[in-house]
Amino acid sequence: VDHEQRRREISAVTLEIVASEGVGAVTFRSVAEASGWSTGVLMHYFKNRQGMLLEALRFAVNEASRSQREILRDLAGVEALIAILEDPLPVDRQRLALSRVFTFFYAEAVSDEEMAAEVDSYTRRWRRAAEHAVVAAQARGELDPTQDPAQLAAFAVAFADGLALHSLLNDEVRDFVTNASPVRRWVDALRVPAAKADGATRRAPRRSARSSVKA
Amino acid sequence: VDHEQRRREISAVTLEIVASEGVGAVTFRSVAEASGWSTGVLMHYFKNRQGMLLEALRFAVNEASRSQREILRDLAGVEALIAILEDPLPVDRQRLALSRVFTFFYAEAVSDEEMAAEVDSYTRRWRRAAEHAVVAAQARGELDPTQDPAQLAAFAVAFADGLALHSLLNDEVRDFVTNASPVRRWVDALRVPAAKADGATRRAPRRSARSSVKA
Repeated sequence: VDHEQRRREISAVTLEIVASEGVGAVTFRSVAEASGWSTGVLMHYFKNRQGMLLEALRFAVNEASRSQREILRDLAGVEALIAILEDPLPVDRQRLALSRVFTFFYAEAVSDEEMAAEVDSYTRRWRRAAEHAVVAAQARGELDPTQDPAQLAAFAVAFADGLALHSLLNDEVRDFVTNASPVRRWVDALRVPAAKADGATRRAPRRSARSSVKA
Repeated sequence: VDHEQRRREISAVTLEIVASEGVGAVTFRSVAEASGWSTGVLMHYFKNRQGMLLEALRFAVNEASRSQREILRDLAGVEALIAILEDPLPVDRQRLALSRVFTFFYAEAVSDEEMAAEVDSYTRRWRRAAEHAVVAAQARGELDPTQDPAQLAAFAVAFADGLALHSLLNDEVRDFVTNASPVRRWVDALRVPAAKADGATRRAPRRSARSSVKA
């Protein structure tokens, strides 16, 4: 038996339940029914419901990281940055499950230091991918090279994650996010003028965007 | 006995524990020790630990709303908007407790529809205050009047909330947020040129910021 493969299968089923019915619907019983494995088999793999959700989180995060690597391979500069930021937004079932299970563990993170370290390692991975794209965009002359890439990546990822979170909670916000591409607009506003798609004339860099750069 | 007053006192003590030790440290025992009330008295007011945290959330949200009303009374236009967005960021103990307890209930919201409605009502209140400031800023000529104020407020609040959440999880992000005023920079980038503090010359409105406005 390939135990790793079976755990991945169970995680995929768990995430399907999260997408269709929410985190609250995940139980040994519901996952057993949906996966075809008995609750006894599931209990062999997972200590409790929480463990099943944690495995599903790790599975979902690995999928998201793989997607980010593909983006960095296929796209360049600001287009890669926009794609990395927009990629995990809850616009389809897979991403809806990721956002919901992630949000569930954010709460664990404010109660439990070990969980905080794990959850932070995932947001850090997202920030690093974004930073990678920022550095490339700076090298291509698309973004101001005097901006701290780690800082800019941190703000961009916080923005995208806030949009994901509020999209989960409120349908109007979800529609705004789906229809108005806030991430693309934000990144576009950061572009250095010469590289702007609409060909705006070059202007002096805004002081506010530079004086507060750290280090 | 003024029961409402006592519940508020207990909530303030609960939030102190959340600020100093985290949500995980809140128990009937720890709140009893810190408040001077017996666990028996606490159990008279709250069904369980969750109920104590929920009361603390409501107390913290009311404080935050009061603060937003004061901002709307004391400041105008974009300065009011920036203050409303920055106000709940976890830069002091009171706001740290608010952010932590809020994040704890975000997870409840992805498991429980009733909780989702309550949590969403609080973020909606925050969006409405921001929208109020956006409309005033548009009337003052500081922000593009063709932008949908509800949409702009939704994006702004999601940005601020993402910054709050990631500040909780990661000290580097918290330092970035504290030192680089990302919210102020973001709002500043949205200002119509004539109203910019640094006196940048007037330029054509960016097409990207307008073409995607909904309705």
